[in-house]
Amino acid sequence: MNTFGHLFRVTTFGESHGPAIGCVIDGCPPGIALGAEEFAHDLARRATGRTRHTSARHEADELEILSGVYQGKTTGTPIALLIRNTDARSKDYARIAEQFRPGHADYAYWQKYGTRDPRGGGRSSARETTMRVAAAVIAKKWLAEKYGVQVRGHLAQIGDVVPASFDWNAVEANPFFWPDASQVAELENYMDALRKSGDSVGARVTVVADNVPPGWGEPIYGKLDGELAAAMMSINAVKGVEIGDGFASVTQKGSEHRDEATREGFLSNHAGGILGGISSGQPVVVSVAFKPTSSLRLPARGLDVRGEEVEIVTTGRHDPCVGIRATPICEAMLALVLMDQALRHRAQCGDVGDVTPRIPGEARTKASK
Amino acid sequence: MNTFGHLFRVTTFGESHGPAIGCVIDGCPPGIALGAEEFAHDLARRATGRTRHTSARHEADELEILSGVYQGKTTGTPIALLIRNTDARSKDYARIAEQFRPGHADYAYWQKYGTRDPRGGGRSSARETTMRVAAAVIAKKWLAEKYGVQVRGHLAQIGDVVPASFDWNAVEANPFFWPDASQVAELENYMDALRKSGDSVGARVTVVADNVPPGWGEPIYGKLDGELAAAMMSINAVKGVEIGDGFASVTQKGSEHRDEATREGFLSNHAGGILGGISSGQPVVVSVAFKPTSSLRLPARGLDVRGEEVEIVTTGRHDPCVGIRATPICEAMLALVLMDQALRHRAQCGDVGDVTPRIPGEARTKASK
Amino acid sequence: MNTFGHLFRVTTFGESHGPAIGCVIDGCPPGIALGAEEFAHDLARRATGRTRHTSARHEADELEILSGVYQGKTTGTPIALLIRNTDARSKDYARIAEQFRPGHADYAYWQKYGTRDPRGGGRSSARETTMRVAAAVIAKKWLAEKYGVQVRGHLAQIGDVVPASFDWNAVEANPFFWPDASQVAELENYMDALRKSGDSVGARVTVVADNVPPGWGEPIYGKLDGELAAAMMSINAVKGVEIGDGFASVTQKGSEHRDEATREGFLSNHAGGILGGISSGQPVVVSVAFKPTSSLRLPARGLDVRGEEVEIVTTGRHDPCVGIRATPICEAMLALVLMDQALRHRAQCGDVGDVTPRIPGEARTKASK
Amino acid sequence: MNTFGHLFRVTTFGESHGPAIGCVIDGCPPGIALGAEEFAHDLARRATGRTRHTSARHEADELEILSGVYQGKTTGTPIALLIRNTDARSKDYARIAEQFRPGHADYAYWQKYGTRDPRGGGRSSARETTMRVAAAVIAKKWLAEKYGVQVRGHLAQIGDVVPASFDWNAVEANPFFWPDASQVAELENYMDALRKSGDSVGARVTVVADNVPPGWGEPIYGKLDGELAAAMMSINAVKGVEIGDGFASVTQKGSEHRDEATREGFLSNHAGGILGGISSGQPVVVSVAFKPTSSLRLPARGLDVRGEEVEIVTTGRHDPCVGIRATPICEAMLALVLMDQALRHRAQCGDVGDVTPRIPGEARTKASK
Repeated sequence: MNTFGHLFRVTTFGESHGPAIGCVIDGCPPGIALGAEEFAHDLARRATGRTRHTSARHEADELEILSGVYQGKTTGTPIALLIRNTDARSKDYARIAEQFRPGHADYAYWQKYGTRDPRGGGRSSARETTMRVAAAVIAKKWLAEKYGVQVRGHLAQIGDVVPASFDWNAVEANPFFWPDASQVAELENYMDALRKSGDSVGARVTVVADNVPPGWGEPIYGKLDGELAAAMMSINAVKGVEIGDGFASVTQKGSEHRDEATREGFLSNHAGGILGGISSGQPVVVSVAFKPTSSLRLPARGLDVRGEEVEIVTTGRHDPCVGIRATPICEAMLALVLMDQALRHRAQCGDVGDVTPRIPGEARTKASK
Repeated sequence: MNTFGHLFRVTTFGESHGPAIGCVIDGCPPGIALGAEEFAHDLARRATGRTRHTSARHEADELEILSGVYQGKTTGTPIALLIRNTDARSKDYARIAEQFRPGHADYAYWQKYGTRDPRGGGRSSARETTMRVAAAVIAKKWLAEKYGVQVRGHLAQIGDVVPASFDWNAVEANPFFWPDASQVAELENYMDALRKSGDSVGARVTVVADNVPPGWGEPIYGKLDGELAAAMMSINAVKGVEIGDGFASVTQKGSEHRDEATREGFLSNHAGGILGGISSGQPVVVSVAFKPTSSLRLPARGLDVRGEEVEIVTTGRHDPCVGIRATPICEAMLALVLMDQALRHRAQCGDVGDVTPRIPGEARTKASK
Repeated sequence: MNTFGHLFRVTTFGESHGPAIGCVIDGCPPGIALGAEEFAHDLARRATGRTRHTSARHEADELEILSGVYQGKTTGTPIALLIRNTDARSKDYARIAEQFRPGHADYAYWQKYGTRDPRGGGRSSARETTMRVAAAVIAKKWLAEKYGVQVRGHLAQIGDVVPASFDWNAVEANPFFWPDASQVAELENYMDALRKSGDSVGARVTVVADNVPPGWGEPIYGKLDGELAAAMMSINAVKGVEIGDGFASVTQKGSEHRDEATREGFLSNHAGGILGGISSGQPVVVSVAFKPTSSLRLPARGLDVRGEEVEIVTTGRHDPCVGIRATPICEAMLALVLMDQALRHRAQCGDVGDVTPRIPGEARTKASK
Repeated sequence: MNTFGHLFRVTTFGESHGPAIGCVIDGCPPGIALGAEEFAHDLARRATGRTRHTSARHEADELEILSGVYQGKTTGTPIALLIRNTDARSKDYARIAEQFRPGHADYAYWQKYGTRDPRGGGRSSARETTMRVAAAVIAKKWLAEKYGVQVRGHLAQIGDVVPASFDWNAVEANPFFWPDASQVAELENYMDALRKSGDSVGARVTVVADNVPPGWGEPIYGKLDGELAAAMMSINAVKGVEIGDGFASVTQKGSEHRDEATREGFLSNHAGGILGGISSGQPVVVSVAFKPTSSLRLPARGLDVRGEEVEIVTTGRHDPCVGIRATPICEAMLALVLMDQALRHRAQCGDVGDVTPRIPGEARTKASK
């Protein structure tokens, strides 16, 4: 199951330290202008090595389009994307092959397959998410051009630190995707201290899609929120997903949670833009919890492949907070789900004309924070 | 997309007030003993009308097996289950057909399909979950008999009330699936006051699967946690899903979160039994947030189908806390995901023999709470 | 795998002599007018017992719509259809439970599942095709209303008998779906003699879809002809499928086979309306080979469930030529494939406007024969 | 839909004259020894340019394994295979971009997508089948090692020429995969004359799988024969598929067609090893009709992209009989279907032990011819 989506299908392949990573995008509409250079921006946003706060691996991430594009436009046939791995230092991982790192996929892969590729985490490495970001470049573009959908995200919490204020313009101006510029120095210090300590910390990312038309999503098992939950939970290190108010709904009253509406629009967006699994026209808001990195210099108790108890210390390049570079990945999964649902919606409901009344998707600014 | 699962596939159908609800279970292993009477227990646990704290609808829920069972055993061909709707009071819903209730799927369905069945919420009613519970009876049985997997759950929070202590034995002895018997009277009062107020409240449910073997789940887009997230989020009124520590991971340090292991077993279960999308052998722990019911006697601002602003008041039978009867539904989705993954695992990895070393799935008691 | 289709998905269930047969149709566009009475015509065409030349079983085939239709129109949610089995004479099949009839699915089911429902062939009975015909009633209607697509078929050969002339008007006027009215008496005698002999014979059915727009079908593994081949081969007793000239292509020259075109249209239709897996705008023509019924009064050598060699004689109701009533079933599968491909096409290529030049789908009359 | 299979899934990509072709194989069991050199044999068998009777394109077909293999064994993660296109003479196809060749996918792609890659047929080129053959190398190996399944095939007819005798040993000793060595000179002359004439001819290929265990295949829409029909029809230029006796069944009597059995085995194999969509243990026999190549030096009437009538002459490299090199492709599709069904069977029926009685799969030699 390395394929995501029903109609806009993305199949990824590749290990962290194998020859290459790549993906095949099947079901893409024809006629979309597409060049290899369009992937650079989001790949750079996701790239490791962007700041000193993420792991030191430097990948050129030179992406090649192998198929599905002719004379600068998609043809409707599968689009294969390829990135060669150029910075794979396999020597870093010699000892890891013998041990099961606590909190890692090592042991689970071993139990499932009876074997595993230990080089850089193999298939379980977050390097796989590069191709999600790449595939989503196409989805973002189509969604924006055809429906005006805007997909963006930000870091919403690191450890105990939460944004003191919110400004979308700040987000892309700092390496943390942090919505308050005034806190960036504080975060720098926080991360420096964390790195020195040898420990790591969790984070929360929030992604938002504006201008999603009402009607996307399918009842029951193809619900928009259900697929978003699966999409986000499939990202490395994710332990929780919320739509709209999420777990805060547990303590809310119904009279507080339900989003009332007038002809001018919705008065709130506790639902996060999804009702009954179908978009309501309000901004789609998803929050994602990332666990702290488990690969630490601090020793831990664990087993090796012979069943012996060992003290496990992980050196090498590892982010002290994987959530920092996760924003573009969460955006990517949001875009991929929306793209797929958009195609499915017009397949089944392409005969349904404009439906009235249409409530304006207000409360946007509030919801997006 | 009314089908759930890849190999153990459940397709449900039916509206709340249509002639019947039902499901077709495809891909079930042959040879499982199965009688119509085996569904009664879990259907009763889920049934509306169980206590005065859930809605007053009384369904006989008499289930008929239409196919796939011969001489009391499954044959491997599709198992169709049918329950006639007998307590559908359509008159309750006459006005609702004209209005979009805030917080309901009404408006989203209308925008998607250009039409909707307003009787009892139609397809968006939680009545659909009856068939999930029914289908999961087979999954639970097979998982228990073949692997000793035990799937169970409990209510973990109502509004601000959390369990003061934890005892699995208490859970089935009260109508709230509440793990502390001493709090049941308090909850009764809480619910009575809530009902009188005309308002509703959210809840949290936690479900646990013990004895899941390591190795179930698939990397990347078929991850066990990803599919659990989709499964839970597909339940009516769910707004958030957590695996293991979930959102608590955001403020944890890596040295705290990672589950160390010795030859005697894991020392903790922050991961909730899943690493890299694959079961680790520890208890699989999932928490689910339910929003408060939106159908309230308290008036709300909304629109009708002509686009006029109206004051919306919902009478009729509605749970003041949908989470109360959600425990069996969450259990059902957990069982369905595990069953499907178990079949997929032996399809791909049936040649992989016993893999050593095998860490005992300890820390179970702690994890289950 | 009792589900057919990707977007217009039909899941069937039920055994020949179980309580009921039925299907769930998922992904149907909303807004299609639909009443239970619309199924009667095609169900009657397919019904056993139509003439003395098909088996004597008489089913009322009273179809009930259980869901997915509100106020006489489809709602976009799953449509469940149910037919109770009312004429199941299980006593006929007592001995069959102990024996493997040569040429039947008995032995194969036994080997696969370790069990089987012997009553009337259980799941392997052609009774299952009733629900394909029912589901296709919706597909035929939508295809006709939206695109003017006309799906029809005829018997093209029984044993050595082939039509002496061709007239679509004759087809529905005789119980054989035979295109030459002057041969009907001959066929009656042929079938009477066959029945007396205790033997059976094979047949060929041809189905045609006119007015299929160009562009339906997907490259490689979702080819229109590939899915038609699977659809037809999935019908009981089918052993061969041809598109257009089919096996006659083996001895053709390229200069003869390729369909030339002018501005007035194509000059021939050897391709059967499909090129590269995609419809060309010409009539889609499919031919299907049915093997002779294997259940015969004439004794055969076979084994029983204890592995003993036995002489097997099948009494009870069996068609001496299953192909006779197969025409509506082949039409159904053609319609289901086209419906699914039409939805998929507009999902991916809904942005592609009218494409010029468009060659008129001529050579239609010739192709349809 | 460029993905084939449910559990052993092959996704291919690439155009004839694009940078590369490739595939991703998902769901492969772990632990299979695999090296890049193992693909060479079957790729050479399929390669264009093998004899002067197939098209002159010479591809090195150097295959690279990009993922999914570690230390010489499959890991269970997706296996990506890549072949760079090195002999793409795009200049040959300049004129073709402006015209729709009769009998080609040109016009159908144009109508579907509003664009097409004309270089060498783009995605509709038979070059895509290279990756099917590559993927099937793994399937063939696993099927042989685990079950002793042997997949092989031969050319069964070219135009009017049929084998005068049958010898499996002859098949691989001549460039036609022809089962009678004494006819090879005749075929050489036949093809030379054909090439001189500028015309082409059709062919028939038969593939056989020996030692398939009984029980593979699924009822109704996942039937083994249904999936084989789709698999074969998805190959370029295929117009017909038969299982066992195929269309010959039309004129057979039931007493002749049904395969009787004794304790020593089946007495015949008219069914081609499949009953009720499930393997019977006899050899699985599939015959496939290939149409004659449509790209001819002989002029044809057709249209250009402006809708003008033009005389179309195709120069460049084209096989006068595409069926000649199709044998390995048909074998590949047979192997892929069997592999997928084998995994599915053990998923659902892994608990079913040895089922008795088991009829020996006799009549093998006869059936294979």
